[in-house]
Amino acid sequence: MEKALDLDKFFNPRSIAIIGVSRNTFSLGGLSYLTYLQESRFAGPLYPINPSAEEILGIKAYAGLTGLPRVPDLAIVCVAANRVPSVLEECARVGVTHIHILTAGFSETGTKEGKTLEEEIAAIARKAGLLIMGPNCMGPYCPSARLTAWGARPGLDGPLGVISQSGGITQRLTEYACSLGVGVHKAASIGNATVLDSTDYLMYMARDEKIRVIAMYLESVRDGKRLLKLARQVNRDKPIVFLKGGESERGASTVISHTGRMAGGEKAWQGFMGQSGVSQVRTMNEWMDAILAFCLLPAPRGRGVFLVGGGGGNSVIYSDTCIREGLEVPALSKANMKRLRPLVPMAGSIAGNPLDLWETFQNPARLSEILEMGYEDPQIHMIIVDRLIPRKAYHMPIMPDSTPQVVEYLKSHGHRKPTVFNVDSEGGDQDLALKGTALRTFFCQSGIPAFPSLERAARALFHLYRYHSRFSLPENS
Amino acid sequence: MEKALDLDKFFNPRSIAIIGVSRNTFSLGGLSYLTYLQESRFAGPLYPINPSAEEILGIKAYAGLTGLPRVPDLAIVCVAANRVPSVLEECARVGVTHIHILTAGFSETGTKEGKTLEEEIAAIARKAGLLIMGPNCMGPYCPSARLTAWGARPGLDGPLGVISQSGGITQRLTEYACSLGVGVHKAASIGNATVLDSTDYLMYMARDEKIRVIAMYLESVRDGKRLLKLARQVNRDKPIVFLKGGESERGASTVISHTGRMAGGEKAWQGFMGQSGVSQVRTMNEWMDAILAFCLLPAPRGRGVFLVGGGGGNSVIYSDTCIREGLEVPALSKANMKRLRPLVPMAGSIAGNPLDLWETFQNPARLSEILEMGYEDPQIHMIIVDRLIPRKAYHMPIMPDSTPQVVEYLKSHGHRKPTVFNVDSEGGDQDLALKGTALRTFFCQSGIPAFPSLERAARALFHLYRYHSRFSLPENS
Repeated sequence: MEKALDLDKFFNPRSIAIIGVSRNTFSLGGLSYLTYLQESRFAGPLYPINPSAEEILGIKAYAGLTGLPRVPDLAIVCVAANRVPSVLEECARVGVTHIHILTAGFSETGTKEGKTLEEEIAAIARKAGLLIMGPNCMGPYCPSARLTAWGARPGLDGPLGVISQSGGITQRLTEYACSLGVGVHKAASIGNATVLDSTDYLMYMARDEKIRVIAMYLESVRDGKRLLKLARQVNRDKPIVFLKGGESERGASTVISHTGRMAGGEKAWQGFMGQSGVSQVRTMNEWMDAILAFCLLPAPRGRGVFLVGGGGGNSVIYSDTCIREGLEVPALSKANMKRLRPLVPMAGSIAGNPLDLWETFQNPARLSEILEMGYEDPQIHMIIVDRLIPRKAYHMPIMPDSTPQVVEYLKSHGHRKPTVFNVDSEGGDQDLALKGTALRTFFCQSGIPAFPSLERAARALFHLYRYHSRFSLPENS
Repeated sequence: MEKALDLDKFFNPRSIAIIGVSRNTFSLGGLSYLTYLQESRFAGPLYPINPSAEEILGIKAYAGLTGLPRVPDLAIVCVAANRVPSVLEECARVGVTHIHILTAGFSETGTKEGKTLEEEIAAIARKAGLLIMGPNCMGPYCPSARLTAWGARPGLDGPLGVISQSGGITQRLTEYACSLGVGVHKAASIGNATVLDSTDYLMYMARDEKIRVIAMYLESVRDGKRLLKLARQVNRDKPIVFLKGGESERGASTVISHTGRMAGGEKAWQGFMGQSGVSQVRTMNEWMDAILAFCLLPAPRGRGVFLVGGGGGNSVIYSDTCIREGLEVPALSKANMKRLRPLVPMAGSIAGNPLDLWETFQNPARLSEILEMGYEDPQIHMIIVDRLIPRKAYHMPIMPDSTPQVVEYLKSHGHRKPTVFNVDSEGGDQDLALKGTALRTFFCQSGIPAFPSLERAARALFHLYRYHSRFSLPENS
C-alpha cells in the first residue's frame, strides 16, 4: 500500500487556531466551533482570530496567525469564501500545514466565482504543500482528543472510523452510534474534498489500529481506480460499510449542488461495489445496523439463522423476511428436535425453526437452553431472538423481564455464534417507545446488537454473512 | 357480487356466552375473555359457562347453554379441543349460530387426532348451518361495540377493517393503528378458517360502509379463484393492503404448523397479487405505513414527489431513496424556481427539488409558502417534509417548534396533494425517541401521516400512487 499522509494533526492537534470568530453571531461558524471546543474541554490552547477583538469567551484573541505564540497544529477556517485564499497564504507563511475549511460557497454554488475560488484553494495548497480538509464541511472529529466541536458530545471513543462528504449525515451517525454504545475513534467530514480526497483519509484510517470498522459516505471521488484498489485492500481487514449518495439521476444532480462534484456514473459505482467487496447500504438505518453487526459480532460460518420467539404469524413472516434478505432458516438437527419437542406445548406453539415458544420471553433459563441448541446445531450460524415487550393488548400483559439474565448469560458464555435481538416498539405508544429504546440500548451497550424490526436485524446479519463469506471458512466447517 | 353472509352477530352481539371459563386459571382462555369483556364494559349480558361454578367475577355462571335465559348472539368456545364437537352440537340444539372457537389443537398440530377433530367441526357446522370463526384464533374485535377482549383497549373506531389468520399479528396491528389515531371498525382473527374463510369476511366487510380500507393477513385460502374475483372487485372501492404469510418455502412450511393449512404455491400468490391489484406489503411496519397513507391521504395524480427539508447529504440520499422506491423527484416549474431562489441562501443550501433550506424547520410561514409551491406545481403530486427534531449535536440545538402551526395550516388548507412528514428519532437517545414518537403521533392523530424514516414514507406513498394509478386520472391531468 502506498504511504499514508500524516493526518494526525487533524485528529490530535495540540493547539487550534480558529480563523474568523465573530464576537456575537452565533450560528454555524467560528464562534460555535470555539464554544463547543471550550465546552468539550479541548486540552490544548485555542486561538480565536479576529482582527478587532481582545478576547472572545474569555480567551485571548489574535489579529492574525502571525502574532500567535506558536504555530498551531490545526487551523479551522471560518471566514467568508472570498477571503479563504488569503488566509491560506497566511497559513503557508507561518507554517500551518493542517487546515480545515468550514466555509461553504465554492463550486457547489454552481457559480463561476465559486468555482474559481475553489481552484485557487487547490493551487495554493499544491504550491505550499498544505493539507486541507474541505471546504464546505464540518471537519475532523475525535472524542478521545476532546475534538468534538460537532457530532455526539462528549462522544465515545470506539472502533468506528467515518469518512463522509456530508456534515449533517456524519453528525447524525456519530450521535446514533455513540447513543448505542458504539464509539467513534475518528470521523472526517470532508465536504468538497478539493485537496485531500476520501482515499487519503481511507489510507490513513487503514493504519489506525484503533479503527476496526470504517463507515464511508461518498458522493464522488477524484480517482476511482485508486479508491477501488485501496477499498479492496482495506476492506479485507476492516469492513467498509459504504453509503453512496447520488445513485439515482436526481440524487446525482443534487450532488453537484451539495459538494460541487460529479457523482459519477451509476454503472461505475455498481462496478466499484462489486469489485471492492465493500458492504453497500442505502439508508442511515441500514448503515447503523450493519455497523452494529460489524463492530459487535464474530464471523458467522454460513447464512443459517435460528429464529427464536413467539407467535405463529410472526414465525411465518419472520421466516419469509429472513429468506427475502438472503439468509436461510434451516431445520434444526434431529438431536435438537428431540430435546426441543418435550419443551414446546402441542397447541398454540411451534417446535422447530422458527421456534414459537412463548416461554422464551419469560424464562431466561429456558432461553439460554434454546440458545445452546442453536450454538451446537451445525446448520445454525446465527440467532435472532424476538424480545417481546409486554403489551396491554396481551392476555398476560405483565411478564417478568428476563433481559438482565439473558445478557449476563451471553456475556459469560461468549458470542459463540452471532446472536442479536429484535425489540419492536413501533407506533404511537410513548411508554412502549421508551421501553423499546431503553431495551435496545441496554443490549447494544452490553455488546449485543438489538434492532427495532426483524427486517433490519435480518439485513444487518446478511451484510455480516456476505462480508465474511468472501474471506472466511466454508459453511459448516 | 354474491350475497354476503350475515356476520353482524360476530361483531355486534347483544349477548355472549363464553363456554369453558375456569374460575382461577388466568391465561389466554375463557377467564381472560370474560375479564376483558367486563373491563371493556361490553353492554350486553355475558354468560360464563362452567358446570361447577355459581358465579365467576361476580357474574352468574351456567352449567350449559340450555339453561341460559336467552339464546346468545355469540358463543366463544374455550374448552379443550376434544370437547369442541360436543359444544358445537349443543350450540346447534339451542340455536346459537355465530360461534368463535378460541381453542387450538387441531390440524395445525400435525397429528391425526387434530385433523380428525377439525374435520368433525366442519361436518357439524355444515349440517347445522353454524357460522364458525376459527378455530385457533382470537375471534372478532369491534371497539364501537366494546367487543375488545383482545387487541387495543379500549380501541378506537375508525375506517379500518382487518381480516387475519394470526391473532398475534392482529393484536399488534390494532394497537399500532389505534395508537396513531387510525381506528379499527372491525377485525377478525380467523385462525384455521375451517368453516368461514377469509372470502366470507371480505365480502361482509366490503358491504360495511364504515370500513374504507381493508388490511388482510392470509397464510392460505380455500378457494383462490373466489378470493381473486372478490379482492379485485372490493379493492376498486376499498384499498386492500395485503400481507401474505408463507411466501418463502420455510415460511410456507411454518404455515402448516401455525394454521394447519397449505400456504399455496409462490407463483399462484404472485399471480393473485398482480391480477387482484391489492397492495402487497411484506412487514408489519410497511403494512401500517400503507394503511396510514390509504386512510389519511387523497389520491395523488402521479408519482412526482417534492422533498422539503434541510441537509445536503439528506437531500441526496432522500432523492435516491424516493427513486429506488418507484417515485420521481421532478424539477420544480420555472415559476416556482423564480419564487424560491431569493428565499434560499447561496452557500450551504440547495434551491430546487430536493429543497435544502434549514428555515423550513423553524419558520412555519415559510414552510407553508413552500408547500403552496408544491401544491401549485404541475409536476409535483405528493410532498414529503423532513421534520427535524433539534439535537444536541447541532450548532443550533434549540429551535422553535413550528409543528402546531404547520398542522393548523394543513388542516385549514386541506390536503390538496398528499403531504406527509418524516420524523427520524432512531438510536439510543431516549429523549429523542420520546419526542419523535410524540411528534409522529401528533401528526397522525391530526390526519397527517408521519413516518420514522424517509424510506418508509416513500414506500407508503408509492403504494398510494400505485393503487390510484390503476383507477384514477392520468398524470398531470
